[in-house]
Amino acid sequence: MIITFLGTAASSPTATRGLPSVAVRRKDQLFLFDCGEGTQRQIIIARIGLISELKIFVSHIHGDHVLGLPGLFQSMSLFNRTAPLKLYGPTGLGDFVKTFLDSPKFSLTFPIEIREVDEGIIYSEKEYLIKTAWVEHTIPTLAFAIIENQRPGIFYPERAEALNIPKGPLWSKLQKEGKINLGRKIIRSDQVTGPPRSGRKVVYSADTRPCESILKLAEEADVLIYEATFDDKLSKKANEMYHSTPSQAAKIAKEANVKRLILTHIGGRYFNSEKLLEKARLIFPKIDVAEDFMEIEVLYTD
Amino acid sequence: MIITFLGTAASSPTATRGLPSVAVRRKDQLFLFDCGEGTQRQIIIARIGLISELKIFVSHIHGDHVLGLPGLFQSMSLFNRTAPLKLYGPTGLGDFVKTFLDSPKFSLTFPIEIREVDEGIIYSEKEYLIKTAWVEHTIPTLAFAIIENQRPGIFYPERAEALNIPKGPLWSKLQKEGKINLGRKIIRSDQVTGPPRSGRKVVYSADTRPCESILKLAEEADVLIYEATFDDKLSKKANEMYHSTPSQAAKIAKEANVKRLILTHIGGRYFNSEKLLEKARLIFPKIDVAEDFMEIEVLYTD
Repeated sequence: MIITFLGTAASSPTATRGLPSVAVRRKDQLFLFDCGEGTQRQIIIARIGLISELKIFVSHIHGDHVLGLPGLFQSMSLFNRTAPLKLYGPTGLGDFVKTFLDSPKFSLTFPIEIREVDEGIIYSEKEYLIKTAWVEHTIPTLAFAIIENQRPGIFYPERAEALNIPKGPLWSKLQKEGKINLGRKIIRSDQVTGPPRSGRKVVYSADTRPCESILKLAEEADVLIYEATFDDKLSKKANEMYHSTPSQAAKIAKEANVKRLILTHIGGRYFNSEKLLEKARLIFPKIDVAEDFMEIEVLYTD
Repeated sequence: MIITFLGTAASSPTATRGLPSVAVRRKDQLFLFDCGEGTQRQIIIARIGLISELKIFVSHIHGDHVLGLPGLFQSMSLFNRTAPLKLYGPTGLGDFVKTFLDSPKFSLTFPIEIREVDEGIIYSEKEYLIKTAWVEHTIPTLAFAIIENQRPGIFYPERAEALNIPKGPLWSKLQKEGKINLGRKIIRSDQVTGPPRSGRKVVYSADTRPCESILKLAEEADVLIYEATFDDKLSKKANEMYHSTPSQAAKIAKEANVKRLILTHIGGRYFNSEKLLEKARLIFPKIDVAEDFMEIEVLYTD
């Protein structure tokens, strides 16, 4: 999985930070988390193809997180996209999309499937699922987790040979399906493989106060992407405005036992990322501030 | 007057061109022509202050020309603008603005005065006026001209002295107001000044086919900003899509006797500006292709 930060500003863009959007590429799929104004251009600059298997996840219906959708849809129509586009977000997402499809009028060349979702597992397929949690912002706001399923354990050829399983398709069938018939014997995969290996987990939380639900959703994540609209000195203001500070983010990362924390949704007044992290790094050392176009590869850990 | 090209792409942005918007600064006033997605960020990068005396002119209600308005208004509210904002454009502009003020909901901190205008003089004050013309595009589309009034002629002190006008405030009163009483005599300004000097004229035309009305509006302009969505080889397609080519723009510039032609709204397939101008330059030599953040100072010519 490759995470690309397309826009890392809060509320208003700056010369160096575009409005919120994060792309995650996994195999032949593209997930887009939020779509602030200018996202379509950031996608072009980052050379991310708008492939067929595109899913967009909207955290909440505030302008800075959604105003890139109309232009993105118009450009995709201009380039004659035909594959369905899947869009997930809180109640109100459908109305917002309907509104901008009516004014200014334009014709979509592809179907949009909008799902206004609640918290829980909102999508699953063979290799991964998407889970959401309500977080604490001024309007209903979702955080999202991409959670891969466990992968089969490592296959040990010497064990398969010892059991007289002929080398070839039966080996991979055994590893993937868990058991095979060999003559009158049933052979289980745990006789020839190590324990199942863990999948990866990436969690995206946009605007929120620190809360129990994001802590739970973030548990054991490989990467937690979390907001830092205000610095530590402004924690009172952050709380009033339903936002977070770097140290609050670091505490969540520590308690949730994540492997890496990336701060985004950075307030326009902050130019020095290192200064923003001074205190937070003492709480949780594997912390960074996202910059536009920063890329992170999420590797398997076993 | 300083013209700044904020976005010079047609329809979709590219890595190097943002969506359409042109800023013109004149004294303490800012005029914005069109406001494609991303304009608010281009304004920040170009270091153009969003001063009180801001007027926005919208050529037509196509997404690539207006989708920057919602985010611009939200950011101006975030920065607590209170001065009224004046918005001019064709029928439908009011509905479009109303729509995006409702979804996603947000509160403006300043009043917006929307004027859906027809062709003719849509605004005038002491030093300049704004004139529009309907051009030929797929939906009602306006071109705009900033036309300065004539300035008083050059003042010749030796003539004033010869007429025994005391040096001081009477001199400037005579130049500005056209006549003064001196004892029982009336002195007219043409006794002490040269002929009135011309003002400047800047014309902005977005999407259009070549047409009589833009030719007329552009007459004797200091700068004509005009679209070139397609190259000369695609003139048939340009015509079908109600757009123009560089040579068509050059012909208009020549016939209208403008001083300088700047092409903008450049199709995404063109990377080499010089190549785009090969033929057009033979028709009208004072031609350039706009690039994002290009600035042009429009000087008085006499």
